[in-house]
Amino acid sequence: MSITREQFEEIFPQLVQDLTNHCCQYGLPEKALVWYRNSLNHNTQGGKYNRGISVVDSTTLLLGRTLTSDEYFKSATLGWMIELLQAFFLVSDDIMDSSKTRRGSPCWYLMPNVGMIAINDAFMLESAIYILLKKYFRQEKYYVDLMELFHEVTFQTELGQTCDLLTAPEDKVDLDNFSLDKYTFIVIYKTAFYSFYLPVALALYFSNLATEKNLKQAQDILIPMGEYFQVQDDYLDNFADPETLGKIGTDIQDNKCSWLINQALKRVNPEQRKILEENYGQKDGKKEAEVKKVFKDLDLEKVYQGYEEERVDEIRRKIAEIDESEGLKKTVFEAFLSKIYKRQK
Amino acid sequence: MSITREQFEEIFPQLVQDLTNHCCQYGLPEKALVWYRNSLNHNTQGGKYNRGISVVDSTTLLLGRTLTSDEYFKSATLGWMIELLQAFFLVSDDIMDSSKTRRGSPCWYLMPNVGMIAINDAFMLESAIYILLKKYFRQEKYYVDLMELFHEVTFQTELGQTCDLLTAPEDKVDLDNFSLDKYTFIVIYKTAFYSFYLPVALALYFSNLATEKNLKQAQDILIPMGEYFQVQDDYLDNFADPETLGKIGTDIQDNKCSWLINQALKRVNPEQRKILEENYGQKDGKKEAEVKKVFKDLDLEKVYQGYEEERVDEIRRKIAEIDESEGLKKTVFEAFLSKIYKRQK
Repeated sequence: MSITREQFEEIFPQLVQDLTNHCCQYGLPEKALVWYRNSLNHNTQGGKYNRGISVVDSTTLLLGRTLTSDEYFKSATLGWMIELLQAFFLVSDDIMDSSKTRRGSPCWYLMPNVGMIAINDAFMLESAIYILLKKYFRQEKYYVDLMELFHEVTFQTELGQTCDLLTAPEDKVDLDNFSLDKYTFIVIYKTAFYSFYLPVALALYFSNLATEKNLKQAQDILIPMGEYFQVQDDYLDNFADPETLGKIGTDIQDNKCSWLINQALKRVNPEQRKILEENYGQKDGKKEAEVKKVFKDLDLEKVYQGYEEERVDEIRRKIAEIDESEGLKKTVFEAFLSKIYKRQK
Repeated sequence: MSITREQFEEIFPQLVQDLTNHCCQYGLPEKALVWYRNSLNHNTQGGKYNRGISVVDSTTLLLGRTLTSDEYFKSATLGWMIELLQAFFLVSDDIMDSSKTRRGSPCWYLMPNVGMIAINDAFMLESAIYILLKKYFRQEKYYVDLMELFHEVTFQTELGQTCDLLTAPEDKVDLDNFSLDKYTFIVIYKTAFYSFYLPVALALYFSNLATEKNLKQAQDILIPMGEYFQVQDDYLDNFADPETLGKIGTDIQDNKCSWLINQALKRVNPEQRKILEENYGQKDGKKEAEVKKVFKDLDLEKVYQGYEEERVDEIRRKIAEIDESEGLKKTVFEAFLSKIYKRQK
């Protein structure tokens, strides 16, 4: 049913060609052109493309038939715009978080001769979205809506990032700063809108089914689903087998305002609180182990399982209640949920 | 005739209010709201507002009458969007260039507790443009054109910045990398489009006079004018009295691909070339003085005066040839030119 990573990847060289052609029209010097091409490739390739692929899959489900080759190309292009938006965020997040690697390669800003030029490269990844939108969607009646949608989701993600950076600064641990309310805000704004709502909203516009009612129904399910996804992510960071997960969790050492620390803070006795205060958010394996022990003693694994059952039940109920009269399809959301329910990585 | 800085500044608090109201709708935590407000104020206030004010002045000239209070507010709002765009570029340029101060204050990224959060703050300055566009211009038939115009000019400026960063890296001096062709590309893309063409293009849309012919005529004059402005800037950086200029030029020490170094490279004998190779782009006052001596020996002051006369004659000729039949006015360009001709700072 779902298209493969390889099928999705096949589209991208054409888009890079479109973007570099656009630059040639301005007479951009060769060296800068090669630079842009390298940044486009390095920063968008090698991920799972879940967000981008979802646009194609959701469109197929909404239209209820195989896509024509033009529909396939265009819906995949919309998918690549989400991947470009994500690349814009990740290139800059990695600088802000002083990260070292991304998808198994050095972060872009740590590549030879890049450094802070990466900031401008991030901007140009964002700009690519609007160049492609204009090239392929200018004639559509929903063109303005697509531009506004990208603007709004971009701003929402930036708000989430602001709140995240202010709540958990890299260098100052203050657990009083954390709260489940802030956690929820960060997760919804920094992740759920662009990763869950955006793909389906784009598919709805592309299928000419983006009525106010359909968009609202989609958002009401996908935002809680995105929240569930991030809680899972935080849970797996600490409790998954690193072998299966494919990476070693670093949330505790990184002072992250994660679901686990917030649940722990709700349940600790004064001694446990003291342990967390003294050991959270420090680059020290022993201190990390102390925090992990508190998480284990509080049986957060079980707390998570309870949360998961409750949340998934609620999402399933909402899916069951969807009004399909304006062309929305329950299968779109079932497909999303089945990809993430009880995932191990 | 022209509105004052103070008149233009009066509008901004309302726009900050609009932007923070927009955030409140999302339930943004208070701390993040205060942060955004501070970033908006710190990064847009205290400049000369030439670009922003030009939108109001050009609109007044195009309409040929005093603006109503609604027209005044809206054209000033368009002007503030250019100031926001510039703030987005300057906040990030200062990080990329490791600058220390901006408009007499520390650069935003060097302010207490800011650091690399400044990158996300830059994004949110850019996003502010589209929030305001939607709030105030959504109902206009030129709304899409304004969005596309901001997208295009933003991308052009980013291309100019890419070329600038690749031509004159902070840490590697290589005069072979410089050329007048690259200089011209950088100046036109990094500065002229957003500083000269954008204000008039916005005024044309707002006055409902943005015909293809008028936009093209405006661009054909304003791009050379922007080029002349930047050459002036480079000339003043070295030859102006720092007292009058209000700052001490640093282009030589900063390894800038400036008009002067490119003119020098065209005229040097082998010994002078050697002096430039050995002394340009280094943080050392004595070496800077060696370069300054070569510039003086080559009489670049006179070369500049010749350039200025020739360029201004050409611009004046173009202004005289303007076809006003579709509502464009020569006075718009005369006003621009009179602000910069023979400026001392």
